[in-house]
Amino acid sequence: MFEYKILAKSKISKARIGVFSTPHGCIETPVFMPVGTVGAVKTMLPAELHDLGAQIILANTYHLHLRPSELLIKKAGGLHRFINYNGPILTDSGGFQVFSLGERSLKEKSLKHLKPAEITEDGVVFYSHLDGSKHFISPEKSIEIQEALGADIIMAFDDCSPADLDKQSLEESVGRTHRWLERSIGAKTRNDQALFPICQGGTDLKLREKSANYIQKFDTPGYAIGGVAVGESKEKIYSVSKFCSDLLDKNKPRYLMGIGYPEDITNIVRHGIDMFDCVLPTRLARHGVVWVKTSRGGVDLGGVGYEYKQVDLTKSAQKEDFGAIDEKCDCYTCRNKFSVSYIRHLIQEKEPLGIHLTTIHNLRFTVKLVEDIREAIKQGVF
Amino acid sequence: MFEYKILAKSKISKARIGVFSTPHGCIETPVFMPVGTVGAVKTMLPAELHDLGAQIILANTYHLHLRPSELLIKKAGGLHRFINYNGPILTDSGGFQVFSLGERSLKEKSLKHLKPAEITEDGVVFYSHLDGSKHFISPEKSIEIQEALGADIIMAFDDCSPADLDKQSLEESVGRTHRWLERSIGAKTRNDQALFPICQGGTDLKLREKSANYIQKFDTPGYAIGGVAVGESKEKIYSVSKFCSDLLDKNKPRYLMGIGYPEDITNIVRHGIDMFDCVLPTRLARHGVVWVKTSRGGVDLGGVGYEYKQVDLTKSAQKEDFGAIDEKCDCYTCRNKFSVSYIRHLIQEKEPLGIHLTTIHNLRFTVKLVEDIREAIKQGVF
Repeated sequence: MFEYKILAKSKISKARIGVFSTPHGCIETPVFMPVGTVGAVKTMLPAELHDLGAQIILANTYHLHLRPSELLIKKAGGLHRFINYNGPILTDSGGFQVFSLGERSLKEKSLKHLKPAEITEDGVVFYSHLDGSKHFISPEKSIEIQEALGADIIMAFDDCSPADLDKQSLEESVGRTHRWLERSIGAKTRNDQALFPICQGGTDLKLREKSANYIQKFDTPGYAIGGVAVGESKEKIYSVSKFCSDLLDKNKPRYLMGIGYPEDITNIVRHGIDMFDCVLPTRLARHGVVWVKTSRGGVDLGGVGYEYKQVDLTKSAQKEDFGAIDEKCDCYTCRNKFSVSYIRHLIQEKEPLGIHLTTIHNLRFTVKLVEDIREAIKQGVF
Repeated sequence: MFEYKILAKSKISKARIGVFSTPHGCIETPVFMPVGTVGAVKTMLPAELHDLGAQIILANTYHLHLRPSELLIKKAGGLHRFINYNGPILTDSGGFQVFSLGERSLKEKSLKHLKPAEITEDGVVFYSHLDGSKHFISPEKSIEIQEALGADIIMAFDDCSPADLDKQSLEESVGRTHRWLERSIGAKTRNDQALFPICQGGTDLKLREKSANYIQKFDTPGYAIGGVAVGESKEKIYSVSKFCSDLLDKNKPRYLMGIGYPEDITNIVRHGIDMFDCVLPTRLARHGVVWVKTSRGGVDLGGVGYEYKQVDLTKSAQKEDFGAIDEKCDCYTCRNKFSVSYIRHLIQEKEPLGIHLTTIHNLRFTVKLVEDIREAIKQGVF
């Protein structure tokens, strides 16, 4: 059911294109997965996601567990039916949010009753970012939730450690991730979901090697690399990505979690990474910031043959720009000539249509980027 | 350019169907105009408005004047081009908001530097609801703004008095409205815009008669009835509507401003009113409240043969309703089976997609209602 077929390889890098089959359709890789945290990619209708070429979306187990709960979604007929999206879906394990959101809420909302997550061998006690209520999640619980949700690809519950962890704590954390992987696999009952284990180890390459070897003891349909982009430098991200990718079975899809700047995608595809997800295109769009192709002065995107720049549409310099965000862009927003000036006005007025138009653009930019990468790989020049 | 042709009349009431031609297309009446206050009908793409059968939309002169300003919109090529909507548009005169928003802001935002609007014969000094800044609007200024915006139908600048005004003040106010109408007409330079004068007079039928007679001295393409739904009872609204409609030229479209409950529309169409606008369908949608047809226990809609009820989707009773808002509704939301449970979840999570789905439904409900009314009139049974 979860076959991965490699269709072509670059002659000058480890980049490749492939097709991963899931119960809800095939995914051509390299692929970018828009993030729909609570079961909706911000402002987007499912049909609009299909229209812009999104092949698979990601939803967050942590958020859906807290609200509306996996039990409700199961009653509704599963996540695909609930959110009215008939393409492939991936759910994360909840681990990342359990650690990061609890901490962040502590700082941002100063909810006095909130405490940091407490990790034990059994699992994690955490406090909801919504109301501070106490919850417990374990590998078994994570799989139970993800099975109730019913995504096509589910993730093992891991201990996602921050970048600045000391060596001993990092070792303990990786050991825990491995034991939790075994328990995740043991808890799994559905065979129409592909479980991806997650390679951890921070920036410690020896630990990464140990982890890459360990997770491959289980013959799963794909592998993920986690614990990157958690505070370390770009160079470190790239070196970890390259190092791990080389260690992971080349006949299976490799998923680097949480990476989304265009230049990161083009660089990391060269390491043989096949799957990406990131909130950046949607988050930036929500603040009126868009990605635009440019012929010079931007960030180079290597093999695809163009550069891009990040433009903040809310700046007053954009006030009288009556052209599209990018005249040559084929997204719905640009194709239909919604002007920068109008979009800026809508965002200023907090009209939801404004961030809808920028979200469409940024998602199409990112999806088009991986399409262009695939095309360049086919031609062997990437 | 602004012809009104009556196509059919009911045999049992004064309801009629007609076609009003404008530079951006024809409008079949009775018509409901969705409100796009700042140049966007909340959450809606222009194509979605066309899809659900909206024939004309309304935009607010007051808001667009303050932000982004009529000068910017004129530079952009006019309002149609700026908001990317190629159908007919109506702009109000700004008068209503100048009075109501200033007052409301005083109460709601308690901006200390805000003062109520000051009316003189010349015009109105008002304080922006955004930042309290001082502005002046006169009949000439209103027309200047509306000409810069370039809507198909523009409104005369009137003194829109509250329901509880004493007789003497009301008389003065109506007199001012009439003098301002003359100045509005005098200021008008474009001949591709239809100016509608506004009949005022509160609930005083003698004043209404005087006003109806006065505004018809100017041979304008249509007439509006203002100053209703400003605090008086439904019975008063209906009696004023009926009274004024009878006095206005039956060969011109008659527009009752600011009315939008379904039962109000069906009742008032019977008085021979042809045009309606209201923020209700979009405002209720924004709070998760939808209109649904029902076979019993609802509000009767007379000649169209059904009842409706107002349902608050955010209530916990809707939590496990996995059906559409209305299985028989032909709106995009219901047709594509987005469930009440999912929409409720989205609204709870403040995901803009939630209110987008309810807005589509409520607007289609209202547009379909006037379509059903037109059909019933054609069959002579309304």
